[in-house]
Amino acid sequence: MSEREMVRDLSEGEILRRILARTGRATVTEVGPGDDAAVLAVTGSVVATTDTLVDGPDFRREWSTGYDLGWKAAAVNLADVAAMGARATSLLVALAVPGETPVGEIEAMADGLREACDTLAPGCAVVGGDLTQSSVLTIAVTALGDTDGRPPVLRSGARSGDVVAIAGDMGVSARGLDMLFERYDGSPPALDELRDADRHAVERHLRPRPPLTSGPVAAAAGATAMMDVSDGLALDASRIADASNVTLDLHASALGDDPSLALRGGEDHALLATFPPAAVPADFREIGRVLPRADAPVTVDGSPYRGHGGWDPYRDWSSPTP
Amino acid sequence: MSEREMVRDLSEGEILRRILARTGRATVTEVGPGDDAAVLAVTGSVVATTDTLVDGPDFRREWSTGYDLGWKAAAVNLADVAAMGARATSLLVALAVPGETPVGEIEAMADGLREACDTLAPGCAVVGGDLTQSSVLTIAVTALGDTDGRPPVLRSGARSGDVVAIAGDMGVSARGLDMLFERYDGSPPALDELRDADRHAVERHLRPRPPLTSGPVAAAAGATAMMDVSDGLALDASRIADASNVTLDLHASALGDDPSLALRGGEDHALLATFPPAAVPADFREIGRVLPRADAPVTVDGSPYRGHGGWDPYRDWSSPTP
Repeated sequence: MSEREMVRDLSEGEILRRILARTGRATVTEVGPGDDAAVLAVTGSVVATTDTLVDGPDFRREWSTGYDLGWKAAAVNLADVAAMGARATSLLVALAVPGETPVGEIEAMADGLREACDTLAPGCAVVGGDLTQSSVLTIAVTALGDTDGRPPVLRSGARSGDVVAIAGDMGVSARGLDMLFERYDGSPPALDELRDADRHAVERHLRPRPPLTSGPVAAAAGATAMMDVSDGLALDASRIADASNVTLDLHASALGDDPSLALRGGEDHALLATFPPAAVPADFREIGRVLPRADAPVTVDGSPYRGHGGWDPYRDWSSPTP
Repeated sequence: MSEREMVRDLSEGEILRRILARTGRATVTEVGPGDDAAVLAVTGSVVATTDTLVDGPDFRREWSTGYDLGWKAAAVNLADVAAMGARATSLLVALAVPGETPVGEIEAMADGLREACDTLAPGCAVVGGDLTQSSVLTIAVTALGDTDGRPPVLRSGARSGDVVAIAGDMGVSARGLDMLFERYDGSPPALDELRDADRHAVERHLRPRPPLTSGPVAAAAGATAMMDVSDGLALDASRIADASNVTLDLHASALGDDPSLALRGGEDHALLATFPPAAVPADFREIGRVLPRADAPVTVDGSPYRGHGGWDPYRDWSSPTP
């Protein structure tokens, strides 16, 4: 029965009740879902960010289950909070879904949201949401965090002489996406038939695991700049370089088996940071140095990086002049 | 040139720059748009809510300009913050737009967001956003507010003997929507040909003006319950009644020229509140009394309300069994 139940068969209120029964409760909650708005305790300043997943440019439903989508929508937003050096506390989820969506898929999405929070950012949960109907499945998530009194870590603070360091994957998600395009164009991925490393890459692409707790660790250690790597290491490194008016020189030998993949690969949501040389915490590994600003924002072993800069989801998906 | 420029002709970054050039700066901003997340100062607890406008169920582009949509997306979310008794401080806007959308329409939307904030909630502004491509224009807004140390006003605190009072319009938006359906189905509204009251109603429907500053006033005066009237006075009054386990008896004589319209009409985003009899502030006018719980959650002059309960956007728009 419940497998055949579609979103259009139920009222908005009933579907929201089913979702909220699965999303848990954030530790900061003073007033939870069900009133006009949530009310949340804060100790420092509030960190707030929003990011949307749209069916088509951002995911394919033959590759991603409802659970995967819920997980990913949480993870990518929580990573932006961590990248400020803050502790992620809560999510608000605006869901626009086609009427013929199975209710079970929406419930699985709620499970994915909850488990991503429990796994990556314990204490964080969905505190509010909205459900609308649309012909295009759209998941807009706002993530909130708390600086706990520490100054936020911006993109603009990197100084010549700092170490460039990273916590999290480099190129793994891109490898997974390549695998999906090569082997499963139009069909669900049969993970059992993949080698371990390939399966791992596909799983990470579908359910990213950014090292969220390393964000506050970096802030406490004195990180001078930080951001999460969503559009590729090279492109995101250039953003820190431009904001800080420095050049980031990366060491090819520190970029793993496939430095080119590491440099272009997006959606790992690793935390890229710069630290004074003596301050790099154990969560992070050194991958380069900050130099005085040269022509190129990013160099690899001293040479300007010339590869594909990364992923502009808008331009890469549909521009008539790519 | 710029009139013919479409969203698909520009990069996501360029469009975001154009939007952010128009959205102003919130007074709470410590770190504004351009980093991984915004950072905002808070004095009390944070109030957070999200609501989405989707082309089709929530608006029609022949009726609403980009400016109207920006204004409305801000106003409906800010009203939920005010309904908690909080001061609205900031908005995050997740925009999913078709590639063939004129850039000028997006810029107008940014203007509408800014002017709604400036008019209704001075000091509030857009602090973050996201732009994605979708075949369906979708505006998901998260509004944040600050309790400034006052306890939030919930739906559940109304007590028998309290006065029921309202700040803002009753039925005006519904009258405007009726007018649009009757006279402008499929065409832009020609406001010049309408009588003053009708034109006013259409304008309020397209650009609602909830009395946001009355929210904190009600909280400071000791409101026992409050919510914003988005789905109709009768339906929303029943929500306070159910949450508080009381009955709200409304006085037909206090519901204006057309009590039936006032009771069913949604989207005015008036603030409906209950107060101890001596505590009703000047912003609010009395429209009823709180009684011990009877069978009906809402009565009008003592008789159970039997009309259409209000607007369930999901069910009313598309259910195969209305």
